[in-house]
Amino acid sequence: IMVAKIGVLKCGNLGTSPVIDLVLDERADRPNVEIRVMGSGTKMNPEDIEFVVPKMLELDRDFVIFISPNPGAPGPARARELLSEADVPAMIVGDAPGLRVKDEIEEQGLGYIIVKADSMIGARREFLDPTEMAAFNADLMKVLALTGAYRVVHNTIDAMIADVEAGKEIELPQLVITRDVAVEAADFKNPYAKAKAMAAYEIATKVADIDVEGCFMVQDPEKYIPIVASAHEMMSTAAKLAEEAREIEKSNDTVKRTPHGKEGETLSKEKLLEKPS
Amino acid sequence: IMVAKIGVLKCGNLGTSPVIDLVLDERADRPNVEIRVMGSGTKMNPEDIEFVVPKMLELDRDFVIFISPNPGAPGPARARELLSEADVPAMIVGDAPGLRVKDEIEEQGLGYIIVKADSMIGARREFLDPTEMAAFNADLMKVLALTGAYRVVHNTIDAMIADVEAGKEIELPQLVITRDVAVEAADFKNPYAKAKAMAAYEIATKVADIDVEGCFMVQDPEKYIPIVASAHEMMSTAAKLAEEAREIEKSNDTVKRTPHGKEGETLSKEKLLEKPS
Amino acid sequence: IMVAKIGVLKCGNLGTSPVIDLVLDERADRPNVEIRVMGSGTKMNPEDIEFVVPKMLELDRDFVIFISPNPGAPGPARARELLSEADVPAMIVGDAPGLRVKDEIEEQGLGYIIVKADSMIGARREFLDPTEMAAFNADLMKVLALTGAYRVVHNTIDAMIADVEAGKEIELPQLVITRDVAVEAADFKNPYAKAKAMAAYEIATKVADIDVEGCFMVQDPEKYIPIVASAHEMMSTAAKLAEEAREIEKSNDTVKRTPHGKEGETLSKEKLLEKPS
Amino acid sequence: IMVAKIGVLKCGNLGTSPVIDLVLDERADRPNVEIRVMGSGTKMNPEDIEFVVPKMLELDRDFVIFISPNPGAPGPARARELLSEADVPAMIVGDAPGLRVKDEIEEQGLGYIIVKADSMIGARREFLDPTEMAAFNADLMKVLALTGAYRVVHNTIDAMIADVEAGKEIELPQLVITRDVAVEAADFKNPYAKAKAMAAYEIATKVADIDVEGCFMVQDPEKYIPIVASAHEMMSTAAKLAEEAREIEKSNDTVKRTPHGKEGETLSKEKLLEKPS
Amino acid sequence: IMVAKIGVLKCGNLGTSPVIDLVLDERADRPNVEIRVMGSGTKMNPEDIEFVVPKMLELDRDFVIFISPNPGAPGPARARELLSEADVPAMIVGDAPGLRVKDEIEEQGLGYIIVKADSMIGARREFLDPTEMAAFNADLMKVLALTGAYRVVHNTIDAMIADVEAGKEIELPQLVITRDVAVEAADFKNPYAKAKAMAAYEIATKVADIDVEGCFMVQDPEKYIPIVASAHEMMSTAAKLAEEAREIEKSNDTVKRTPHGKEGETLSKEKLLEKPS
Amino acid sequence: IMVAKIGVLKCGNLGTSPVIDLVLDERADRPNVEIRVMGSGTKMNPEDIEFVVPKMLELDRDFVIFISPNPGAPGPARARELLSEADVPAMIVGDAPGLRVKDEIEEQGLGYIIVKADSMIGARREFLDPTEMAAFNADLMKVLALTGAYRVVHNTIDAMIADVEAGKEIELPQLVITRDVAVEAADFKNPYAKAKAMAAYEIATKVADIDVEGCFMVQDPEKYIPIVASAHEMMSTAAKLAEEAREIEKSNDTVKRTPHGKEGETLSKEKLLEKPS
Ligand SMILES: [Mg+2]
Ligand SMILES: [Mg+2]
Ligand SMILES: [Mg+2]
Ligand SMILES: [Mg+2]
Ligand SMILES: [Mg+2]
Ligand SMILES: [Mg+2]
Ligand SMILES: [Mg+2]
Ligand SMILES: [Mg+2]
Repeated sequence: IMVAKIGVLKCGNLGTSPVIDLVLDERADRPNVEIRVMGSGTKMNPEDIEFVVPKMLELDRDFVIFISPNPGAPGPARARELLSEADVPAMIVGDAPGLRVKDEIEEQGLGYIIVKADSMIGARREFLDPTEMAAFNADLMKVLALTGAYRVVHNTIDAMIADVEAGKEIELPQLVITRDVAVEAADFKNPYAKAKAMAAYEIATKVADIDVEGCFMVQDPEKYIPIVASAHEMMSTAAKLAEEAREIEKSNDTVKRTPHGKEGETLSKEKLLEKPS
Repeated sequence: IMVAKIGVLKCGNLGTSPVIDLVLDERADRPNVEIRVMGSGTKMNPEDIEFVVPKMLELDRDFVIFISPNPGAPGPARARELLSEADVPAMIVGDAPGLRVKDEIEEQGLGYIIVKADSMIGARREFLDPTEMAAFNADLMKVLALTGAYRVVHNTIDAMIADVEAGKEIELPQLVITRDVAVEAADFKNPYAKAKAMAAYEIATKVADIDVEGCFMVQDPEKYIPIVASAHEMMSTAAKLAEEAREIEKSNDTVKRTPHGKEGETLSKEKLLEKPS
Repeated sequence: IMVAKIGVLKCGNLGTSPVIDLVLDERADRPNVEIRVMGSGTKMNPEDIEFVVPKMLELDRDFVIFISPNPGAPGPARARELLSEADVPAMIVGDAPGLRVKDEIEEQGLGYIIVKADSMIGARREFLDPTEMAAFNADLMKVLALTGAYRVVHNTIDAMIADVEAGKEIELPQLVITRDVAVEAADFKNPYAKAKAMAAYEIATKVADIDVEGCFMVQDPEKYIPIVASAHEMMSTAAKLAEEAREIEKSNDTVKRTPHGKEGETLSKEKLLEKPS
Repeated sequence: IMVAKIGVLKCGNLGTSPVIDLVLDERADRPNVEIRVMGSGTKMNPEDIEFVVPKMLELDRDFVIFISPNPGAPGPARARELLSEADVPAMIVGDAPGLRVKDEIEEQGLGYIIVKADSMIGARREFLDPTEMAAFNADLMKVLALTGAYRVVHNTIDAMIADVEAGKEIELPQLVITRDVAVEAADFKNPYAKAKAMAAYEIATKVADIDVEGCFMVQDPEKYIPIVASAHEMMSTAAKLAEEAREIEKSNDTVKRTPHGKEGETLSKEKLLEKPS
Repeated sequence: IMVAKIGVLKCGNLGTSPVIDLVLDERADRPNVEIRVMGSGTKMNPEDIEFVVPKMLELDRDFVIFISPNPGAPGPARARELLSEADVPAMIVGDAPGLRVKDEIEEQGLGYIIVKADSMIGARREFLDPTEMAAFNADLMKVLALTGAYRVVHNTIDAMIADVEAGKEIELPQLVITRDVAVEAADFKNPYAKAKAMAAYEIATKVADIDVEGCFMVQDPEKYIPIVASAHEMMSTAAKLAEEAREIEKSNDTVKRTPHGKEGETLSKEKLLEKPS
Repeated sequence: IMVAKIGVLKCGNLGTSPVIDLVLDERADRPNVEIRVMGSGTKMNPEDIEFVVPKMLELDRDFVIFISPNPGAPGPARARELLSEADVPAMIVGDAPGLRVKDEIEEQGLGYIIVKADSMIGARREFLDPTEMAAFNADLMKVLALTGAYRVVHNTIDAMIADVEAGKEIELPQLVITRDVAVEAADFKNPYAKAKAMAAYEIATKVADIDVEGCFMVQDPEKYIPIVASAHEMMSTAAKLAEEAREIEKSNDTVKRTPHGKEGETLSKEKLLEKPS
């Protein structure tokens, strides 16, 4: 079998970061992918990038994915330069601030996926300890999973894997995962489930504005602590709405599942007890 | 400032894997840590280990953390050999199956953290697609965060970081995060919140038995699909119970927060509007 | 007792419309107010305004309140002209679109209250029947009540009533009820209750954008029906969050209540079994 | 088009009052109705009635609706006299106490709609401030909307509108909206949704007895405050049950919607994405 | 220790029947009571009574409790005759229909406890199978437990036990457990918890009227099946409200507990981790 | 009609005890059963058994059921001896500890039903007062009802009744009600409802381990009180999961009901408004 060798660079953390490698091989039994991950934890300064990206470029990869918050920030900008210069096909995965550098990314010959609902966290010391950080990411992951956003991510990368298997030049994606793109992939059978997922996606997307306000625009702790706390309450209620959407589909046994098959192809099924095909 | 250079190796995915690096530097502003992460996605076969571990050992690290499901499996066993031979202090983070090789880990001069509630997922193709995988991990992360398990993880690693800063020989942890160890760190003020968190931890722990039954002991899809589906229902209800615990503490403004301070020390606070100290 | 004679004109329906007269005399026992309401139901075309406003101006009122959606629309614009010409002090109550004509209102010598979270409804025939309309308004009323917005409305009008009682020239309000203005009045004792109410206010505010998209910007029913349905799901989840805020204050017996007293003054209390004073 | 000119008199507030005009023209685009509303806020004393009713009778209306709590109270009784003497067809809308004067209303040649679940509020100063009043009305509106009561109201008045359009003498309704009348109109497809709505209607109806006890029969604040508070808890739980009924119908995409059409006729549909016909 | 020998006769099933013996000795370690139970399952016809009551009267009991639905029905009436003739002190425990024979019970020299919220079940074959019966009883037990009704039952019987221990003539209770009697015993610290429990008690009490309507007054299955189903929905929502009351007290660690002590005396405590005294 | 005369002995309390007689005749109208119940309340010491069992054996019964916690305990062991010696067919109903004496029961010629999820209660004085006991039993009954366990109990005993009616030798059951046996009888149409019920059964089963730990293995109140409290939180969350399973089936009108018919046969139906057949 032709194995697509994928490099994943994780500098700083997005809601999509923890799963971007996992969604490509959810049961660790996909024969046609070999994934190497390198990262710098939550830090994404230029010096972190300058260590990690070259490290990855030492490896023989069919394509490389660089995922970080804010593709316009200094670190991620440096990463784009390094990847653009390298001759390996590369793609940037980022959040809404990435929309401001979309064209630059295209000019650099890089692909991109912008996940609009993958909102920034409430990063204030009085509020965000490791526990709160993990709880926020859990809610964000629930939203991105159940609204279909993660399915768009793996469908898009699976297409690149297919190009590799077909010996074709990899068509780098230029994709913004909007509310409608996400729920389209979620493939809800019930229209109210779809409506709830759309609502969840919109609320999650709005969280970014509130955390920007709380982290950058308001300097009085008495004010910014409740603001970032309210942003996390919004993400948790978005997660509940996304779960309500899923519970409706479960109640009708119409949950769309798209597992990877034995040869690494993407299968699909609906009834729980059905074989995927 | 004395910077602790940490290496994190992620082979295969545990509920703790996505956050083990993030909890050490939740706002990416901790001056005394530099983290380099390498991993192989969901795969954890010996060949993945044999690539990733040596790659990390090329770097100059103060200590290395290897996190994977089932420390007794072939891949993780190979990693332990490589790390044991290397002269860098190293620690294994794993789930309940790791309890069976605890002594061997000690003999190999490696530290360990076993997270009992970090249960195996329902890895059956008819059920586990990337979306279900991410949703399960979101619930598991919510449990491990709100029951205090993640706080034990970062407290333990912070102690190693403190050893590095103090120029001392790193005292490698030998720790099993049980229900009581986790909720102790969660530091609930309300006894019923503590009881709900304990219940969440027990239910999450039990999920492993059900997924082992569904993935390895029952071969009829008509039977094993509902079994793994029921395991995921248990994890989601555990997450709800953990949230109930958190909501009680929020209702009394007694949520314990332990953020990292400007110098990378661990601070703590209780009232939301209070300054951590 | 000096009785403030108030005129309320309701043309078209806002979330605040049904209660703007009720909040001034919640138990119908306030001796210092006499309210006369005139309106045209949901219609707010110029001809409706041209009937109703003059009708009210025939009455001897100390001040007049005109409440309608979108103070910039033709009907409401006509009302502002008529009220501006009349010599009775008058005030406009509207939703976010009113922000665009704020200055014009001031120039017309009219007061105003803009309620930012009082969002437009999903007015598409395939979705909005009378039952859905009432259900949406019930959720919106719950948000505006429990986030403190209605308290700001009655405090503001009570001040005008006080001017009348004091024989003073009525100081016409120029007020935008933002998230922070609302929750300030709600006077939450628990910071997480405040955060949940702030989240509810933001979500309710965002509903307007979604309904504008569904009612005016998207013309394909297959697309706009789920969009307006998702807007109503957002309002219902905002109502639940506002209720969670209230439940926290109830759990601590710290619900702030501001009833009108025997002489029509505004009292306040916290403990449920306490006498207001 | 033949336009039915309707007069609505709102003296005092019922759960049905805020919407009785709105349900006739939910999107403000019904060509065959012109509604003029006059009211006296929460007050419903004879002097309020003696001002407002004659004011309305000055207008040329096809029929007039007088809605108030307790049609037997002095104010509403005076209104019935005035309307009975006037030669315009008129109808009384009231709550359960109205059942005691049903025959008198008939003798006066007036129509009536009694809404049994439209229960009196907990009107005690220590409990009912404007915020609590609005929250109660929000729950009551949710019950009356989702159990079908409001649909009976607009169907009934639509029949009068149809008489006007047909140039026929208006057949004044003599209708008590009981539990069964309401849920019949709600047209639930799922029998458990119907059962939940029936339960919600019964609980909402029972609220009146509890508020009568708390407001009139018990004079010790230590006793009557918890009683009226418990009445409001009953209404909020009735609202949740009504929502559960709606969520079941949404989960099967069988929500019955009866929007008004372009010519003001009443259409109906079931599937969310279906065109009403 | 002086042991009170108690006889419990269970003919037919009330919500209080399953626990009336259990609440006297909740941990089976109360030294001063010896309980003998005899019953006839759900049947309560005269022939069942005529077997079971004499059987019990053969035993040497300090006092006998006869618990059944509807103390006025033929079977229970027969039991009252038999017990009245016997010279052992005896008490009747029943539901609201017992209020009609209260005086007769007193004349017969029997004590009584009437539990007003212990409502009749929806006993229609098309609806009530053994599973539905058990689920209803579970909800009813939750209401009677958490509203304080069961505490009144055991406090009352404990007083009779105390009389036996003191060698005094047993003072037979004449008690109607109303809403206020129940919540008094529940001893809520938070007034909103008390209000929710009161609401739960009222809703549970109302269930009887609905089941009487569904079981005896309506003969068309199309009508009576939804009616009894709605009664069960009311009991389940009453249980949820009672749980909300308990959750508030848990959130403040003020749950009143009244366990029996080592010598069988009744202790009490509030904080969970406190010793009862 | 041939009437099966059944004796039920209740010594000590299991979750199944309160209903084991009720499920055989849920509407007290089953002509072919006559049930006599005798018990000793919560006490199950040898002296209680030695009174109650012989008392029952005085009666002419077709078969006798002895239900108690822990069939291996001294009291229940004594009961088994007495019943084994008697020539009436007899059956033991117990909880998981009974699995240890399963063979002995068989050798004694007794039938048995072991209900695995019928877990022991948190019997610590500081925690378990009569109210907490009743609340736990309510949750346990909800789980055993809605997961199908109680249906297995009555189906099994109905088969013995059928043997009696057929004049055949009663085939004594040898049955362990596992998770799969229970949900099989619940006959869920929706696979996710089945998965939720399976999860509820597993969590309820696990409660026993936690209460054993809290009641027997840990002696420090500071530790064992939270442990038994967490066990009760697990049972309450299991009850919620079981309710979710039921709500899915209700949403599709596929709730399986197995009422007893006019001749005492077991009927079944699915649609709520359907006649059982
Ligand atoms: Mg391609
Ligand atoms: Mg150390
Ligand atoms: Mg509190
Ligand atoms: Mg002023
Ligand atoms: Mg007609
Ligand atoms: Mg006494
Ligand atoms: Mg047989
Ligand atoms: Mg369905």
